[in-house]
Amino acid sequence: MNLKSDNAGPAHPEVMQALAEANAGFALPYGGDDATRAACDRLRAEFEAPEAAVHLVATGTAANALALATLAQPWQTVFCTPLAHIHTDECQAPEFYTGGAKLTLAGADDKMTPEALDRAIAGWPPGDVHASQRGPVALTQVTEMGRVYALDELRALTGIAAAHEIPVYMDGARFANALEALDCTPAEMTWKAGIDAVSVGGTKNGCLGVEAVIFFDPAPAWEFELRRKRGAHLFSKHRYLGAQMLAYLDSGLWRRSARAANEKAARLAEGLRGVPDAAFLAEPQANMIFARLPRAAHQRLHAAGAAYGLHEGPLNTGDPDDPLAMRLVCDWSIGEDEIDRFVEIARG
Amino acid sequence: MNLKSDNAGPAHPEVMQALAEANAGFALPYGGDDATRAACDRLRAEFEAPEAAVHLVATGTAANALALATLAQPWQTVFCTPLAHIHTDECQAPEFYTGGAKLTLAGADDKMTPEALDRAIAGWPPGDVHASQRGPVALTQVTEMGRVYALDELRALTGIAAAHEIPVYMDGARFANALEALDCTPAEMTWKAGIDAVSVGGTKNGCLGVEAVIFFDPAPAWEFELRRKRGAHLFSKHRYLGAQMLAYLDSGLWRRSARAANEKAARLAEGLRGVPDAAFLAEPQANMIFARLPRAAHQRLHAAGAAYGLHEGPLNTGDPDDPLAMRLVCDWSIGEDEIDRFVEIARG
Amino acid sequence: MNLKSDNAGPAHPEVMQALAEANAGFALPYGGDDATRAACDRLRAEFEAPEAAVHLVATGTAANALALATLAQPWQTVFCTPLAHIHTDECQAPEFYTGGAKLTLAGADDKMTPEALDRAIAGWPPGDVHASQRGPVALTQVTEMGRVYALDELRALTGIAAAHEIPVYMDGARFANALEALDCTPAEMTWKAGIDAVSVGGTKNGCLGVEAVIFFDPAPAWEFELRRKRGAHLFSKHRYLGAQMLAYLDSGLWRRSARAANEKAARLAEGLRGVPDAAFLAEPQANMIFARLPRAAHQRLHAAGAAYGLHEGPLNTGDPDDPLAMRLVCDWSIGEDEIDRFVEIARG
Amino acid sequence: MNLKSDNAGPAHPEVMQALAEANAGFALPYGGDDATRAACDRLRAEFEAPEAAVHLVATGTAANALALATLAQPWQTVFCTPLAHIHTDECQAPEFYTGGAKLTLAGADDKMTPEALDRAIAGWPPGDVHASQRGPVALTQVTEMGRVYALDELRALTGIAAAHEIPVYMDGARFANALEALDCTPAEMTWKAGIDAVSVGGTKNGCLGVEAVIFFDPAPAWEFELRRKRGAHLFSKHRYLGAQMLAYLDSGLWRRSARAANEKAARLAEGLRGVPDAAFLAEPQANMIFARLPRAAHQRLHAAGAAYGLHEGPLNTGDPDDPLAMRLVCDWSIGEDEIDRFVEIARG
Repeated sequence: MNLKSDNAGPAHPEVMQALAEANAGFALPYGGDDATRAACDRLRAEFEAPEAAVHLVATGTAANALALATLAQPWQTVFCTPLAHIHTDECQAPEFYTGGAKLTLAGADDKMTPEALDRAIAGWPPGDVHASQRGPVALTQVTEMGRVYALDELRALTGIAAAHEIPVYMDGARFANALEALDCTPAEMTWKAGIDAVSVGGTKNGCLGVEAVIFFDPAPAWEFELRRKRGAHLFSKHRYLGAQMLAYLDSGLWRRSARAANEKAARLAEGLRGVPDAAFLAEPQANMIFARLPRAAHQRLHAAGAAYGLHEGPLNTGDPDDPLAMRLVCDWSIGEDEIDRFVEIARG
Repeated sequence: MNLKSDNAGPAHPEVMQALAEANAGFALPYGGDDATRAACDRLRAEFEAPEAAVHLVATGTAANALALATLAQPWQTVFCTPLAHIHTDECQAPEFYTGGAKLTLAGADDKMTPEALDRAIAGWPPGDVHASQRGPVALTQVTEMGRVYALDELRALTGIAAAHEIPVYMDGARFANALEALDCTPAEMTWKAGIDAVSVGGTKNGCLGVEAVIFFDPAPAWEFELRRKRGAHLFSKHRYLGAQMLAYLDSGLWRRSARAANEKAARLAEGLRGVPDAAFLAEPQANMIFARLPRAAHQRLHAAGAAYGLHEGPLNTGDPDDPLAMRLVCDWSIGEDEIDRFVEIARG
Repeated sequence: MNLKSDNAGPAHPEVMQALAEANAGFALPYGGDDATRAACDRLRAEFEAPEAAVHLVATGTAANALALATLAQPWQTVFCTPLAHIHTDECQAPEFYTGGAKLTLAGADDKMTPEALDRAIAGWPPGDVHASQRGPVALTQVTEMGRVYALDELRALTGIAAAHEIPVYMDGARFANALEALDCTPAEMTWKAGIDAVSVGGTKNGCLGVEAVIFFDPAPAWEFELRRKRGAHLFSKHRYLGAQMLAYLDSGLWRRSARAANEKAARLAEGLRGVPDAAFLAEPQANMIFARLPRAAHQRLHAAGAAYGLHEGPLNTGDPDDPLAMRLVCDWSIGEDEIDRFVEIARG
Repeated sequence: MNLKSDNAGPAHPEVMQALAEANAGFALPYGGDDATRAACDRLRAEFEAPEAAVHLVATGTAANALALATLAQPWQTVFCTPLAHIHTDECQAPEFYTGGAKLTLAGADDKMTPEALDRAIAGWPPGDVHASQRGPVALTQVTEMGRVYALDELRALTGIAAAHEIPVYMDGARFANALEALDCTPAEMTWKAGIDAVSVGGTKNGCLGVEAVIFFDPAPAWEFELRRKRGAHLFSKHRYLGAQMLAYLDSGLWRRSARAANEKAARLAEGLRGVPDAAFLAEPQANMIFARLPRAAHQRLHAAGAAYGLHEGPLNTGDPDDPLAMRLVCDWSIGEDEIDRFVEIARG
């Protein structure tokens, strides 16, 4: 019963198989190999974006930091939420890669609203040499609390950005989980909704470590290549990134895995609704659940060896009688039986 | 007959096997897994350095840039040769990670001499606020031209650095090849010879992508951790780095693979001595050969499908009648028959 | 009636006189001159800090950015208020000079409270490689809304910082105005209250352009020198900075000028209390007043040629019937008659 | 007899007078004042460049670093000589401001030749993601050894740069001295000769501290403004920069002062030719002389209190019997009598 994170589970056998198959003979290094080319072509096809610039990197933070550095000038501010991974969990990689950009926090939680974005943008009036200059908006889809922006929510936000002529980046560490939640196409969730650049996560959804970065306007392609190399993120044996991503997309593995994870989370959420005094901190929509359970339930789960994150941040009051906030994440590999057992124990 | 680079060949089956075995169940992310811990312990044991700080990254450029950033202040200069990989082949990753350090070029080729280092250091007198401040010395072992510093050569250089109280970093992208060439222990080639920090390459010698960075004085361990995360080089599914490195060291794979590569290169060099008008640009000592062959030999090799690097830099005069300079690299996987066939064709 | 800013008025005649006197014959460049040495000695004496490291720069932003870069690592966060000059008015100079540090905003206005600082620090738990690391606290004295931290307020804040082993920097762009408001000594307002480093502004209080940066623990002195040079802020004809600062301190000009400015602001505040519907946004304590006046008062003042800042930020509701927020700043040079006339017109 | 540097002498009385006159009443801060506007207009007129972007800063290093950062991407290399001030005397300010650009050294001394530039550029072939990317060429006029590029020498260099589509920056710390040496117009020495951006030094030629940066294509104007502010080089009381520059150009003070300095240097050079065993390290063309004098001459000069720089770098052999290399710099203020006395003592 490991619900700690979708980065703690194993890679999918199909990905491992592809890795083994890629390991034959010589291949051009640094992305010149066939697997990488095929993976990038496949991404362009999946996104109905034949002109898009597509690049692979090995970590989600690299994807975010390199993409934002390409979109933001060092004297600009990125607009994101206070719970954005780029703000809370990347040890200032975005600040490092951008050369000192600022992150302006919009809103109060994981999900940006048009009002919050408007207010944040208004805080930095244009043309003022003393102020931070307006830079890209960064949205996380699935959000850090497991919620999903609906397509019209995305369009409302990207419309505001477009009115201010600032680009929008989507941190898609859990892109496929969002796709499944919305049951839409990659194009609908990105460029058709006004997104300028996106990362497409593989690592949390069955790969060992690979993410794609896509710019729908390919103009920054060469700059990104240089930034990736300068950031030491260009792999010499690049075929192993390409092979992962190709297997991930082939036969729809990315969506299959995401669907499996989402369904387990839905089953888990449904089960937890039956726990007395349980409460959700955000309505579960993808593969993550943020909830409060009574202390006794935690104790039973702990005794049974269940693993999950206890939220130490402002979600918990510190009052020892308070139900504790927890984060439960389902990856592609977790079994229904584990979910059911978790629920059973939680219910007591 | 692929002699293009040791980053173009496949990973070793033992490494692939270890990867598959590591892919079972859940594991703590971000380096908290067992494989990573075991790999780091093993490195400390191999280097007879029980206190050393050991970290894994996925690319050689990350190892170099992060290590140098940890050793150099932004206002300092690194001392390296004009052919150093950190100068010629990393798109200024060291400059990026250090926050703007300078690279002062010592000597004229791939191998630093005490005289060249003395002169370079003297060029930046201490205590001058206008000048670059003296920072670490960076040596590449095996050098970029395939030569190997003898232990007393290393000690002569590190002695100069120590006299100026500046640290010495060894870029060990081909560390095991150098070990085999010198037939010494890791400790002898590093801290016993005055080296302060070293990278130990796995990628070019049978791994998919893993390098270790070792600081013999562990004081900068936490700073390195932060720099690695901020550089987006901390892998969530870190077990796959750990598993590679562990397999690489286990049963002496690193030295076995390096020995195989060196022996093939020696056989190739021996064979090329029989080619009329052939000449070596540097005496081959490990797994790389820099040589000139007559144009006709190149044409025969090309027609036979041999793959290798033609040196476009200052090594070639541009005179169409001149023999062309080439780089031939043997990895662990190349066969004796390929070597022999290459030689045969070269001889005509 | 120019109340726009204390950086719009002229330099004090005593400073101009000193500049003219310094302009005789040759002087050692880059701070080796007598005036600079004397000014730094004088600052050490004024602050009762004979060991302190003292440096001069020409702009307040340079003082802030260089001091913070010396105190903060690139992976750390500075703690400041949302109205801090370093956050709102320096085009990300602190981010640039620190190499990508973050600014974490504590509290809701210009004045930090212990509760707000506690909460902000708690938001970045120590030992987490993914999080921003805790760095220096930055306080502005006089605050950006014209308020002054009392000595016990300072001690409460620096006590929290000390408990977390993080240093405290004071942005003293209006240092002398605060000294006068508190009627205390420089030592009492700084190191005796737990401040680790401070800038002492001259530019806004009668100089042409000079600020001192003082570290009470002189350990970072040489690093600061290198950072200042690397930032292009080391003046070759440094004597003109030294001469300004020396004249500023001599015969107590800094306190005399600040007292004059504070007194004018107090007279102005007193006068504005008589304007119907006037309100202060913050209780005036030094030389700046933030107030709301009825629209008609603004129209009369405008017609009479009065110059001052209209606050365009969140202080104004946008409702055209609302009284408008304004910033009124008194420098050393403004006359009592101008103040009185301003009040008279405002009263209508 | 102070020949140490043109940054050790006093400011010109006309500049001091202008400063005093500018010190009246209120003025818009941050460059919005009349003096700054007039100075920038005057520079555009002097350079026959009505569209040019013109900015003032207070130090030569700020001018160089900000201009290069505007022209170079962080992954590019600047091409300069090994004696370039930006390489040897700015504590890596260019590396800092550019975010990690490299300086590739072309040639062997202070003056770049077309051959050296060609070779340096060829060292970084385009389109290679691993290499440094080609960035701006930086020339110093007057060079660091006191020589002056003739107009056709400039055109030969800028022609090469143009063929590679890289811009050319001129470090004009002694711009007026070069103008006088060539007896040409500012336009002829800059944009008519293919220069894209230039700094025009005031500090070394009679001002307290002011330099202009001019971009003949004004496209980067706003970016430069942001970089200047972010670098903490935007002065609030900017009128004092404007007033200096305006006085400097008015009534031709810049050329008058430069002519005076050059003439003194020529007189000094002429005199030194009569010293037995004297030799020039570079043919004096402007206001700096690099020469060797017999040790006895140095002893006599030293005893008489003459001040000048003894070159400690590679110019001196270290052999105690060798004549010592020296740097003699004439500023606008040095008297003919001092020159004559210096020569007389040197001759013995």
